[in-house]
Amino acid sequence: MKYYILFIFFCFVCCDEYGFDTKYIEVPLDHFSFTNNKTFKLRYLVNDSYYVDNHPIFFYTGNEGDISMFAQNTGFMFDLAKQFDSLIIFAEHRYYGETLPFGNLSYSSPEYLGYLSAQQALADFVYLIDDLQQQYANKSSLEKVPVVAFGGSYGGMLSSWLRMKYPYSVTGAIASSAPIWQFKGLTPCENFNKVTTDVVRSLGSEKCVETIKKIWSIIRSKTNTTEGKITISKEFSLCQNLTSQNDVEVLLNWVNEVITNMVMVNYPYPTSFLVPLPGNPVREFCSKVDSVEYKDDDGVLKAITTGLEIYTNYTGTTKCNDILQTASSSLGETGWNFQSCTDMIMPMCSTDEDMFENSEWDFKKFSDDCYEQYKVRPRNEEVPILEFGGKNIETASNIVFSNGLLDPWSSGGVLQNVSSEIAAIVIPDGAHHFDLRGSNALDSESVQNARKFHQNQIKKWLHQFYFKENKDLYYYYNSKRYD
Amino acid sequence: MKYYILFIFFCFVCCDEYGFDTKYIEVPLDHFSFTNNKTFKLRYLVNDSYYVDNHPIFFYTGNEGDISMFAQNTGFMFDLAKQFDSLIIFAEHRYYGETLPFGNLSYSSPEYLGYLSAQQALADFVYLIDDLQQQYANKSSLEKVPVVAFGGSYGGMLSSWLRMKYPYSVTGAIASSAPIWQFKGLTPCENFNKVTTDVVRSLGSEKCVETIKKIWSIIRSKTNTTEGKITISKEFSLCQNLTSQNDVEVLLNWVNEVITNMVMVNYPYPTSFLVPLPGNPVREFCSKVDSVEYKDDDGVLKAITTGLEIYTNYTGTTKCNDILQTASSSLGETGWNFQSCTDMIMPMCSTDEDMFENSEWDFKKFSDDCYEQYKVRPRNEEVPILEFGGKNIETASNIVFSNGLLDPWSSGGVLQNVSSEIAAIVIPDGAHHFDLRGSNALDSESVQNARKFHQNQIKKWLHQFYFKENKDLYYYYNSKRYD
Repeated sequence: MKYYILFIFFCFVCCDEYGFDTKYIEVPLDHFSFTNNKTFKLRYLVNDSYYVDNHPIFFYTGNEGDISMFAQNTGFMFDLAKQFDSLIIFAEHRYYGETLPFGNLSYSSPEYLGYLSAQQALADFVYLIDDLQQQYANKSSLEKVPVVAFGGSYGGMLSSWLRMKYPYSVTGAIASSAPIWQFKGLTPCENFNKVTTDVVRSLGSEKCVETIKKIWSIIRSKTNTTEGKITISKEFSLCQNLTSQNDVEVLLNWVNEVITNMVMVNYPYPTSFLVPLPGNPVREFCSKVDSVEYKDDDGVLKAITTGLEIYTNYTGTTKCNDILQTASSSLGETGWNFQSCTDMIMPMCSTDEDMFENSEWDFKKFSDDCYEQYKVRPRNEEVPILEFGGKNIETASNIVFSNGLLDPWSSGGVLQNVSSEIAAIVIPDGAHHFDLRGSNALDSESVQNARKFHQNQIKKWLHQFYFKENKDLYYYYNSKRYD
Repeated sequence: MKYYILFIFFCFVCCDEYGFDTKYIEVPLDHFSFTNNKTFKLRYLVNDSYYVDNHPIFFYTGNEGDISMFAQNTGFMFDLAKQFDSLIIFAEHRYYGETLPFGNLSYSSPEYLGYLSAQQALADFVYLIDDLQQQYANKSSLEKVPVVAFGGSYGGMLSSWLRMKYPYSVTGAIASSAPIWQFKGLTPCENFNKVTTDVVRSLGSEKCVETIKKIWSIIRSKTNTTEGKITISKEFSLCQNLTSQNDVEVLLNWVNEVITNMVMVNYPYPTSFLVPLPGNPVREFCSKVDSVEYKDDDGVLKAITTGLEIYTNYTGTTKCNDILQTASSSLGETGWNFQSCTDMIMPMCSTDEDMFENSEWDFKKFSDDCYEQYKVRPRNEEVPILEFGGKNIETASNIVFSNGLLDPWSSGGVLQNVSSEIAAIVIPDGAHHFDLRGSNALDSESVQNARKFHQNQIKKWLHQFYFKENKDLYYYYNSKRYD
């Protein structure tokens, strides 16, 4: 399905660089209705190695995947926690990772899966935060400890919405690469793919873009015959031969996703994702694509398949490509696809101005596909705007939206200050939530500046909090250096 | 059940002084989960007789009863609409009046009734407001028209929460007699009954309070025997004789409710409620109570039953008293009792400092009663605070909380300014949402001042709105007089 591809957020293979205790809290299945009193265990990770009494909680609002994956790739929170004497929490989003409200049945039908929604997840977080605040406050000096929310990508959307909807729960939010405007009428549907194309053009080459542009029709025409399907399967080193038109669509999606993923995770140093990647993977990819001189369709195919090896076979040990999977199995693609059919409806399309195959945003077709796959339909495209306000967020406060301009998702992000209390910071050479990663010798100046900006904003929010709640702690914080 | 009594909001018999068209909008049954795609028809009333293009919508957030009841008793919105050229909307709250999502089955089990909640109702209103804004904006000059929310009592809670949770939906909110702090830990559980007692003492007399204080144990001791039950049934002119201890509890609740209701609706001029009442009913009631000289329990009984006739038989045509009903059947007592067991858990109790029978707030027992009656239990007492923030509402804006100090519900209200953008106004001689009533020659100066205050705040909010959206309309409004 065409809509499938657009919602793949990248992920990482965990090397467990950061240590945590695993805990669980019992939360209501349905926070907003009372047809049942069911509860389930929500998993969260705790690191209290830096925590000093009455200091803040840094709370990661988990997104669409196993929370340990995010915990291992948000080193920025650790770097900050050392300075702020903070408790570190990573809360898992319901229906992802181990947090399956109905166990193995969780994904079996809308009856079970229907409680997967951003609003319910936010209410889970509020529930957990309240519990943590009670646990960790030294009641003699403070009723509740302050909490700062962090999140990247969909997790960043959640952290900003948490502050908007429940400002009493979190004192502020760092929302990194959060495309809160990737909804109907807020961002043209073609922008995501245009940004992706621009990045390949500027970091790779115009030739690389042109080669990618050619690949879609070549795959289509070559797979017209049974023989052609076998040839193409071989060219792409697929684990299973293409046998139907549907398989062809899956391959097209897979190629699109792999290229898009590479752009999202274009970090300046090697990182280990589903597959290990070199630093600057887009440049490496295009360099390989461009190294193949071609005159005909077979040459284009060769150029692309050679380039893709950067993503699919960087270690040289991959035997074949499974096109049903582009990222770690820790990432809950099925859950996210369900959400994209219900509360996170993000219109996407492709035009001549980008390097992908043209595709329209056809809400009717999208809805039919959703029904076919999940037996749900989006109520209407307005849902995310009715729930979260679209561009009218100026009454909120204490949120930083950060976006890397090399990140396709910046197309739906907040790139300019909304008010004196909702700041936007851009990282011109940054990929998808680059600023949430731990510091690295190869970090650019702009990502370092973004992190410094976050730090100052958090300091300001904590000052506000302690000034109101406890003057001693306020003066203590005011005198503290954060280096 | 003891908790029954505490949630009776008063109501009115409608004389249809104000005209409306009745309309319906199809809204989702469940805004926050996706286990089903059901929708239902939400009723709303429209009066466009004052409306001029691109002017505001005044939107009443319906509470626990038939919406036409509120529409006929919120004349202030009409008085204002004339000045502001506004559209008037009264939206019915789901599960009340005609807005029954499952028709006759709506109240049959938690499976159907469970979608009754404040959060779901707010989302309904956001849905309807969005639709109205699209309908009524003249797109050439304004994308969306501004909306001001109004509400009294639980409706006032909803109007303030609407602004807090969905600030993009309404530009501001007038929350009259909204006890948003009548929740755990925010207000001592005895305050409601203390205020009620103080009002009877100051508007009636100390003797009246003392007489009321005696009645509870007298009813209890006299109804110990079958004969006693018959005697008491006669004294209170009951339609059906008391036969069980449960009947006695119902009677005790009924007497409590009737007295409390009288205090709530203590307006200076005659009004027509479930039963017609004279102006200043508390004074009239105590005057009758005090007119009976008594020496023994029978005398106390006589004094109270004589006094109650102010409420039960002011016209002299009541044949007998039905103690299962204290207010109009238009008021959805069952629905409200369900809500009090789920999301609107308001701890109440009585002590020696008030005139009612002592009672403790026993959450365990309350929960058991809820389960017995509705097959639901409150999750925990914190629910309303987790959902709506308790006293930590200072980040919100453009809300006026008004409270009459003669209103028992003022015990849980916001009586002091929270910030420069959340104002509180008190009406020392005002009863329950007195300020929402249409102007009357007998209005006190303080209620007139409160209405003037509302008017000025609304003007300010609209200025903010038009300044941002359309400068011409801003200048037009700025030059307009509101007299």
